[in-house]
Formats: sequence, structure tokens, C-alpha cells
Amino acid sequence: MTEAVAPLRPGATIGILGGGQLGRMLSVAASRLGLRTHIFEPGANCPAADVAHRVTTAPYGDDAALAEFAASVDVVTYEFENIPAHALDLLGAATPIRPGRRALEVSQDRLTEKTFLRDLGLATAPFAACDDAAALRDALAQIGPRGILKTRRLGYDGKGQVRLDAPDQCEAAIAEMAGAEAILEGFVDFSAEVSVIGARSVSGDVACFDPGANEHRDGILHRTQVPSGLPASLRSDAVLVAARILNALDYVGVMGVELFVTKGGLIVNEIAPRVHNSGHWTQLGCAVDQFEQHIRAVAGWPLGDGQRHADVEMLNLIGDDVDQVPELATQGGTQIHLYGKAEARAGRKMGHVNRLRPGA
Amino acid sequence: MTEAVAPLRPGATIGILGGGQLGRMLSVAASRLGLRTHIFEPGANCPAADVAHRVTTAPYGDDAALAEFAASVDVVTYEFENIPAHALDLLGAATPIRPGRRALEVSQDRLTEKTFLRDLGLATAPFAACDDAAALRDALAQIGPRGILKTRRLGYDGKGQVRLDAPDQCEAAIAEMAGAEAILEGFVDFSAEVSVIGARSVSGDVACFDPGANEHRDGILHRTQVPSGLPASLRSDAVLVAARILNALDYVGVMGVELFVTKGGLIVNEIAPRVHNSGHWTQLGCAVDQFEQHIRAVAGWPLGDGQRHADVEMLNLIGDDVDQVPELATQGGTQIHLYGKAEARAGRKMGHVNRLRPGA
Repeated sequence: MTEAVAPLRPGATIGILGGGQLGRMLSVAASRLGLRTHIFEPGANCPAADVAHRVTTAPYGDDAALAEFAASVDVVTYEFENIPAHALDLLGAATPIRPGRRALEVSQDRLTEKTFLRDLGLATAPFAACDDAAALRDALAQIGPRGILKTRRLGYDGKGQVRLDAPDQCEAAIAEMAGAEAILEGFVDFSAEVSVIGARSVSGDVACFDPGANEHRDGILHRTQVPSGLPASLRSDAVLVAARILNALDYVGVMGVELFVTKGGLIVNEIAPRVHNSGHWTQLGCAVDQFEQHIRAVAGWPLGDGQRHADVEMLNLIGDDVDQVPELATQGGTQIHLYGKAEARAGRKMGHVNRLRPGA
Repeated sequence: MTEAVAPLRPGATIGILGGGQLGRMLSVAASRLGLRTHIFEPGANCPAADVAHRVTTAPYGDDAALAEFAASVDVVTYEFENIPAHALDLLGAATPIRPGRRALEVSQDRLTEKTFLRDLGLATAPFAACDDAAALRDALAQIGPRGILKTRRLGYDGKGQVRLDAPDQCEAAIAEMAGAEAILEGFVDFSAEVSVIGARSVSGDVACFDPGANEHRDGILHRTQVPSGLPASLRSDAVLVAARILNALDYVGVMGVELFVTKGGLIVNEIAPRVHNSGHWTQLGCAVDQFEQHIRAVAGWPLGDGQRHADVEMLNLIGDDVDQVPELATQGGTQIHLYGKAEARAGRKMGHVNRLRPGA
């Protein structure tokens, strides 16, 4: 399915739901194409406000603010997937939302997401819905002795998750969910995690960035490296998986697809219907980065050239890591990105660095 | 001479005089370092407004607006050199201005600039002050049969300039100056024009980007290419010339130095105490581009790594050239930068493209 859409021209405005660092870097990318942004964000002094044409500070329940926001923009996109359905209904009646609702429905709920992926013929971790301790015990018996119980909705960077190693932990794990619907995911024996940042345009063209190899610390992305070290066959498998997902959702924009590398091939861990932390390396490695690729797609432009022309590692600056900035600022081949956040709380993403890798 | 200055921290604000495309790209670079910008610009709806934390729209004669601007920022910089002295006096009393006054005095007046360069021992075109037709005739007799009469102050992109081929054009040329003080510059027989984008930090460190080779059309920069094709000895001469100028001015920030390549070596054409159109290629070719290098310097940071890691050509989009954008948007290795200007007047800089050169 394709739409005939005239590309947005200089001076047009992209509405962005969410004013964190992703909204900030999307806003910068929009400016490169001569486009303005209007940020909608409940929190005051958000990172994106520093580089936006306009900012609305209001909760997602403020219908009047949403209506005025929708009327002021040419298209709406977002930097996070957990936007309340009511806000989407209201905005969608007034202006296009890209990526579309189906992508949000799928990615807002881990059970819907896993089911969607399985129905597409893609491999996932074994999973089962588990809303009470009895169901959880049954699922553990089927899936294996160990797994992770996760809330179906919300939760990121390891939050809202409980590891299970033995059946007697079931009651406590369900209690931890605090009444939220939950899903048990079996453990996957993987040798590496890679992610593909894929993009699909309004006219249905698909382009993917080179897969990156990810390392996590404390459940938060620590480092992404390109090239990933994947053999060529798995690199093209990874890109084909991403393309299949993008096409199945009639997707418009950039998506992050996290994959586990196992002996049996690639397993899809999770999809994110937005620009993704593991794609930040593209700012240094490509003529057109993931942020611009997303803006191009949602603005009805053709996709740009995301071919990698350098070897790069991306390191997140989490919490106190930001104290390394004076030292990092003097290092060769190093590009610093700070998000303008004043207070460095533990676990808070304060910035990242992209670094040319020796031999690049 | 060096100053001990603490580098600006996230959330600090850089004041920028001028809200055109250079201010716009400086503002984006500031955001990467977690810094905010406050733009001071007389014209409404300026390009930099789309990506600035704050904008003051007021003339340079508005003392109250200038005072409020100065009070709201941690340092002042600028995107153009022709700032009225009165405004600089007022701002300079309240907050540091970087680059400093001496750089502005030198570059605001072609006669002062040429004299400064000659006194530094650098080669320039032959020149003479010519405020009337008699002086112009004398100067032409000395310097050679041909030259260009230019106003000493203001004028850019070929404006305020008259070519002279014969002595009988002197009266008309002086009339063209409309009473403004003028300077005659002799023609230089050059094989190429190159420019060096140099930077100097608060602590006196100097770093220069690889020289680029420039082509002009109708007096406006059309294309810059790196590598420039200069032999290594002239490349290092070019960098040494830039460094000498930066040090002599106790300069802080980025400077564009335009040089002619002649049989006798390099001749300095002109210096610009700011980021420069011929340095836009650094956005694609370097981990740290000229805009960030300037922000780092004026913010008291150490200079970043501006080593070139790709072969790049930069093409300006002037006036109707912007109609090529739909075609350019589909080309490989091409990075588009539009300035958000709605109306494409003849000679107006609408944007530029940076392109990876084949074989890069």
C-alpha cells in the first residue's frame, strides 16, 4: 500500500510527541531539511525545547492543547511508543500520524508484539501470557525452568521485569507486577545482540542501516559498534527481518529492531517504532543519520543514503558518566552529544559519544 | 596571552549576534554540547530562530534589548563581522565577546585588514587607499593597469566592488562608491583559491581543518572541495599562515582565511572572524565540524578533533538552485542542509549539500 503525498517544503512544521533527547535530535535533523518542529511534552524545560521552533507544555489529557498542537503542524510523529490512545485518537482525526497506529498498538504491548512477530513467521523467544501465579507456573513448566516476567505494557531499560529461576518464585513475581497484565518470556541462549535501524518511506521504499552490535550494562544500552562482526549472511538476514516487519506494518519512519544472534539464527527481541539509541552511531558514520531518515520518511521525502562510510563505536553517558566529558572532549575522533540535562541522576541518559574506531 | 576560563556547562547560554544560516548551524552545534543559544537579530522569522532556545528581535540600536540580551547569556559571539561598534561597547561591558574586538576591527575594514596582514609579514595583493579619482589614478599607475576598487567597510559576495581596466574609468568607479572610503586592490594572478578554517581556544591552542579548494560563480562561493589538490608544502604553508593570524589577534573561535595560490606562493585574500561558507564540508568530513569547533572555543572548551576522515565536496544552493533539492534528495552520499528560508531570491543562499566524493 502506498500513499501519494507531496513532500513537506521548507517552513512546514513537524509535530513531535515527547521532548527528550530523541525529540531533540529529531528537531535538529528537521532543521537540516528546512523544516520546523513543534514539541508536545508534559514536562517543563525538556531537552528538545532548546532546538524547537515551538513547544507546548501540557499533559496528554489536555484536549484543548492537543487540538491546538494538531492544528499547528503538518504531520505528527513521536519519540516514544507509550502515547495514550485518547491523545492519538484526537490527533489522528486532525492530522497524519507517522508511524501509524498499527505500529504503536503492536509495540505498546509485548504480547501483541510477540504474537505479531510469530504470525509473520519470525523467530522470537518462547512466550506466554501470565496474569496469575498458576498460569506462570504452567508457563514455566512448558517454556523451561527459567524466564523473565514482564509487564505487557510500559517498562523500558529493564524496569517492570522480574527474573525467574525456580517455580517457588511465581507468587512473588506476580505480586511484583502490581496487578498489571504480564508476559513470561523464556531465556534465549544468544552469543550477541545486534540491532537494525530500518526506515520505510511514504512510497514504500525500505532502507536499513548497517546492523550494530550492542552491549548492555544494568539493563541499559552501554555501547554499539559498527561493523558488528556479524557474518555477511546474518547481516542480510537481519536486514530482511527488519524489512519484513516494516512492510507488514505499512510503516512510515524509522524503527529499531533488536535481534539476538543464536546458533539457530536470528531471534527478534523487541521492536521500537521510533529512532533508537542503538542507531546514534549513524550521526558520525553516515551522510544521512537515523534522525534525518525518520524526518525524511514522515515528511514524505525520499529516504536518504544511509550507507556507512566509517567504523564507529557509540558509548552512552549514563548518570555520572557525564563527568568524563572534559576528558572525552580532548580525545581524537570523538564526537560528543550532550542532551542539556542539568542533573545527572543514576541511570539517566545524559548524552553519548560517537567515536571513529582505529583503522577506520 | 591566555585566560583561565572554566568551560561552560550544560544549560549555559551562548548569545549569537545574527540569526542567519551561520547562526542556525552554530545553534545546532551548541545543542550537541548541551548548551543553549540566545539569538539577537533585527529581522523577523530568522533562520536561526527555528533551533534557538530564545530569540530577541530588535535593532542593534536598541540599548535596552541589548542590555537584556547581555544579561541573559554567558558569552557573546557572532555570525557576521559588521556589528555596530556601539552595540559591541554595550555588550562588551557586560559579558565576554569572542572572538574579541581586535579581530572585528581588523576584518571590518579592508585597509586595516590588508595593513595588519602586511605588518605580520604575510603576502597580500598590492593595495592603496583611494578616496578620490586622483588618488585612484595614482594608485593604478603604481599597482598596475588593472584592479578592483572596493569600499573599505561592508560589502560581501562581490557587492560594493568595481573592476577597473583603464584609467578613464576612475571617475565612474569613485562615483560608484557613493562617498564611502575605498581601497584599490591590484589583480593577483592565481591558479586556485583555497581557504583554511582555523580555530583557537581560550587557552591558546590552535587547530586548522584541511584546506579546501574554492570555486566562485558571480562572486559567490559555488563549490569547495577537499582534498584541495594542494601539494603538501603549500597545505602546511596555508595552515601556518592561519595560525600566525590567529595568534597575532589573540583570537578565540573559528576564522576563515581565504588564500590565493600563485607561482610565488600563497597570498592572503581575506579573513572572516567567524565560521565560513567554505568550511561547511566539515559537517560531513570531520567528527567535529567548524560550527562545533567555534562553539567549543567561545565556550572555553578544548578544541575538538577536526581531522578529515572523508573526501567531500560542498555545493552551495543559491536562489533557484534550491529547485534541485528533490533530485539531490535521491542521490547517494549526499547530505542536504536547507536554511528554512521560504523565498528563493536570486543570489540568496538557500542551503548547501555536502557530498562524499567517489573513491572516498
